[in-house]
Amino acid sequence: MNDDQLHAMRHSLAHITAAAVQRLWPDAKFGVGPVVDNGFYYDIDLGELKISEANFPKIEKEMHKLIDYGDNFERFEMPIDEAIEWARANKQPYKEELLNDLKRAGTTVAKDLDADELGLKTSGGSAVETVSFYKNGNFVDLCRGPHVANTKDVGAFKLLRVAGAYWRGKETNPQMQRLYGVAFATQNELDQYLERLEQAKTRDHRKLGKELDLYTLSPLVGAGLPLFTPRGTVLRDIVSQYSNQLRQSYGFQKVWTPHITKKELYEASGHWAKFGEELFLVTSQETSDSFALKPMNCPHHTQIFASRPRSYRDMPVRYLETTTDYRDEKTGELGGLNRVRSLTQDDSHVFCRPDQIEDEINNLLAAARKLYASINMPLRVRLSYRDGGDGYLGELSLWESAQAQLKAAVIANELNYFEQDGEAAFYGPKIDFMATDAIGREHQVATVQLDFVQPGRFGLVYTDAEGNAQTPVMIHCALLGSIERFLSVFIEHTAGWFPLWAAPEQVRILTINDTVLDYVKEVTATLDQTVLDTPVKYNELRYTTDDRNESLGKKIREATTWKVPVQLIIGQQDKEKREVSVRTQTGEEKILLTDLSDYLKKI
Amino acid sequence: MNDDQLHAMRHSLAHITAAAVQRLWPDAKFGVGPVVDNGFYYDIDLGELKISEANFPKIEKEMHKLIDYGDNFERFEMPIDEAIEWARANKQPYKEELLNDLKRAGTTVAKDLDADELGLKTSGGSAVETVSFYKNGNFVDLCRGPHVANTKDVGAFKLLRVAGAYWRGKETNPQMQRLYGVAFATQNELDQYLERLEQAKTRDHRKLGKELDLYTLSPLVGAGLPLFTPRGTVLRDIVSQYSNQLRQSYGFQKVWTPHITKKELYEASGHWAKFGEELFLVTSQETSDSFALKPMNCPHHTQIFASRPRSYRDMPVRYLETTTDYRDEKTGELGGLNRVRSLTQDDSHVFCRPDQIEDEINNLLAAARKLYASINMPLRVRLSYRDGGDGYLGELSLWESAQAQLKAAVIANELNYFEQDGEAAFYGPKIDFMATDAIGREHQVATVQLDFVQPGRFGLVYTDAEGNAQTPVMIHCALLGSIERFLSVFIEHTAGWFPLWAAPEQVRILTINDTVLDYVKEVTATLDQTVLDTPVKYNELRYTTDDRNESLGKKIREATTWKVPVQLIIGQQDKEKREVSVRTQTGEEKILLTDLSDYLKKI
Repeated sequence: MNDDQLHAMRHSLAHITAAAVQRLWPDAKFGVGPVVDNGFYYDIDLGELKISEANFPKIEKEMHKLIDYGDNFERFEMPIDEAIEWARANKQPYKEELLNDLKRAGTTVAKDLDADELGLKTSGGSAVETVSFYKNGNFVDLCRGPHVANTKDVGAFKLLRVAGAYWRGKETNPQMQRLYGVAFATQNELDQYLERLEQAKTRDHRKLGKELDLYTLSPLVGAGLPLFTPRGTVLRDIVSQYSNQLRQSYGFQKVWTPHITKKELYEASGHWAKFGEELFLVTSQETSDSFALKPMNCPHHTQIFASRPRSYRDMPVRYLETTTDYRDEKTGELGGLNRVRSLTQDDSHVFCRPDQIEDEINNLLAAARKLYASINMPLRVRLSYRDGGDGYLGELSLWESAQAQLKAAVIANELNYFEQDGEAAFYGPKIDFMATDAIGREHQVATVQLDFVQPGRFGLVYTDAEGNAQTPVMIHCALLGSIERFLSVFIEHTAGWFPLWAAPEQVRILTINDTVLDYVKEVTATLDQTVLDTPVKYNELRYTTDDRNESLGKKIREATTWKVPVQLIIGQQDKEKREVSVRTQTGEEKILLTDLSDYLKKI
Repeated sequence: MNDDQLHAMRHSLAHITAAAVQRLWPDAKFGVGPVVDNGFYYDIDLGELKISEANFPKIEKEMHKLIDYGDNFERFEMPIDEAIEWARANKQPYKEELLNDLKRAGTTVAKDLDADELGLKTSGGSAVETVSFYKNGNFVDLCRGPHVANTKDVGAFKLLRVAGAYWRGKETNPQMQRLYGVAFATQNELDQYLERLEQAKTRDHRKLGKELDLYTLSPLVGAGLPLFTPRGTVLRDIVSQYSNQLRQSYGFQKVWTPHITKKELYEASGHWAKFGEELFLVTSQETSDSFALKPMNCPHHTQIFASRPRSYRDMPVRYLETTTDYRDEKTGELGGLNRVRSLTQDDSHVFCRPDQIEDEINNLLAAARKLYASINMPLRVRLSYRDGGDGYLGELSLWESAQAQLKAAVIANELNYFEQDGEAAFYGPKIDFMATDAIGREHQVATVQLDFVQPGRFGLVYTDAEGNAQTPVMIHCALLGSIERFLSVFIEHTAGWFPLWAAPEQVRILTINDTVLDYVKEVTATLDQTVLDTPVKYNELRYTTDDRNESLGKKIREATTWKVPVQLIIGQQDKEKREVSVRTQTGEEKILLTDLSDYLKKI
């Protein structure tokens, strides 16, 4: 089934849902019923009556009846005034309102709704004369279509949830009930999706973030401003250390810049004109100075590059900085670590000669590949090129050479890729990385962007072999992207069972009774000397000891709740044999104390 | 010579300076001539004539004449109206203005000047009837005194510099010339001071910061907002890593908090009422939210403590965070790294039971002692206690026990200390650390502060053994203080010759010619495997290779300009003997390649 067919099927199911609701509650007033990711919804006004999940079987039963009837979806047209009359006669005030708006203004009415989904035959902002309807059985709906031919053709579906939604998204409008369903071509696909949804619920990083004590939110500090606990900070640090070490191995050097700047910096970069209204503004009460919180780091980094003369021999100059940027996300859009106002980027900038682009991209791709391979997330990349349009800055020949170098680097790194014209930024082509998680969801992660514009705006130069001033090219790259967002993905990908190197608590010693306490000291001495070296260097082992007077069963249950990847159980026999029982997710085995360090390093 | 005598002597020298100027330029109009640190100044109006350092020998010669005359300083009084008449007759308009103000308003005139220094006999804001004068030789000056008995009693002095200064500090007033001198009891002390001043000039961290490429300032970013280059960032990182490792060895755990917060956090902590007008305010343009940039981290850390229930068994809870705070320093007060708007604190907070205070303080003192000993800065600490006054919060018995625990910890750590009543904060007693640098200057560095107030304000609790809620005590501590300020001290203390572990570029290989390039590869392989472990663990060696076709002399000069602590010179003979010539500040010696790694670890 192709995307268009899937779309038609889901849209037809929206009609069938509405038809079923109408059969059950004939007074129902209908809003709109568009297709969304994996399914559809319909906005319905049932007056005082509230639908709950308890009603779903009844509605679904009715839907199946309609499907079994095997009615055709019949399209017909009506002059707009007749349609308004139809809505009024059928007591459908929301449809009536839509039709009136349509009559007046055509497409402009569609700004707050998806015109395509409404079945609105429009003509570029001007008034509409005729609208189309679809009919299945007794149910008639204003609709542009297309639909499947017959109600029998709708595949597998399930009603998922119901939520309040203001008519046309406006708080002053009546609140309707939005009935969501999911639908797939086959029952198998639907089952897989529902299973993934179930998994996603148990993996929800907001839930795990609380259970595993990774971060907290405080109403006194504010929404979208997470505070990281010791466990969460280990996680932040270890992943950014990984990203830093990878980049340092390719010659990147750490720099440090403040979190605020005068707006003059963004006027020079061009960001002020483009994004000035989206910045957090900072005012000094002691002086007349005013600043902005930085939403990105490139302009700051140009100032370090500009602080000394550079020759072609010094190029490339590579900076990295893991630093927190602030973006003024709307409160309603903030959620867990996925969307925050304080986002920490593992940012890097290369200043290079045009002939160095391919090598530099190669290094960054290799770093990204290594990082995501080590956490078992397959990568797919999009090569975003310019199209024939204007509005792109920088010479065409530079673009063409750069795009070819990007592609060559992607191929050399054996990355799964696709190309897209017209997706480049106005200042240069880019590579976007998508990583697939353990339950099949794809997340946008790293990016590598070329920039032909900013170096010139800041007057950055290096001296070439002939002594002439040349403008360098800039490459922006973040491997993790935003660390907060990366962690939200990483937590859900691993379901909180982090790989040993990343786990906040890597090892927990569980004693069977107090007779082994002296032996525990020998075990901890071994752990103290164990420093992991892959994939992150100098990773000192993080362990705790549970020597409480509790049953082993209780201790194991607690360590498992905390998702401690290695549990070392120590009893009298272990002490006598100078070994430990190592319990991991894959099973339990006895390891000699003398082998423990090497064993842990190889996990 | 005690402080009062030193003061009288310096003040007498101000008079002698003015007298000498009057002998040279009889039309000179005089402002005020107070005592300042290490010396004195006099503000003088010479009309069109500008004094420069070239005039100093002539003025000093005249001063020595006056001293040799051996005139007594004679005090006499005059009714205020008569004094005004005297000023007018002697064409001293500035003195006349002062006297007129004095006549009107008494001490209130002294707001913009130091009344004590002006010889103003005042009576609590009411008008003045009589003023005192001092006379030495022919020079008469309005003055409160006291002075030395005779011009011969003034010790050793030197005119140091001259600078413009507006009369009474107001830009709309005439600009005068402020003539500065330094003075000490003995020539030896003066010489030492001048020598130290000379050393301080060559050690100036603003000068070295530029020469050694440690940080830069950009007018586009703003004053007081330094950007750290790769070399400076190494320095920042290595010292904060040191501070972190020291504290982690005492059980501190890293946390992470955002740089902004809703003001509600500071309303709860009490900071808003006290410091609300000194904060940088942050406004969202997308929403109606407003925030402040954090000037300290304790309120944020309380929110992490508060995010979970805590039992007496969990205590103490110890957080550390190296994070940047923002303080709205006035532009005129900003200079280099010493006073910045973006200051990064190596902050830590302990939440503990009252009986745990001494142990915790002990750990922090031991950490501070170790840190400053390793950089050869002797420490002196001030124990700041409450006095009998009110305004201190928290129970008296808690204060007394805490002060005793602080003192016990200071003594146990064999620290050079002194006690001061009335210097505690209102929320608890504290320990301030003063470190002495290589040229004898004392700098305030680390602090340890007890806090009996904030935990209560945030309603922080732990459950005691009986199941009752108890309020913990909080300990604030920073070992380095502000990293920027610490670096300004560290750079000047070492004069840019950082100890090996801290140097941005630790080793530079200098080749004599190209025949040794293959051997250089072996040397770098050894360096790649050398990781320093004291005082900072996991400190990978930072080296570069200078294999340009230049003379060895030039290469050594450059490496020395960059203050690279270890220079490895490699020639044909070294290659043959499989050794290297190690050149450090203390000399040069041959080291076998096989011993090089151990040798470097022991420096």
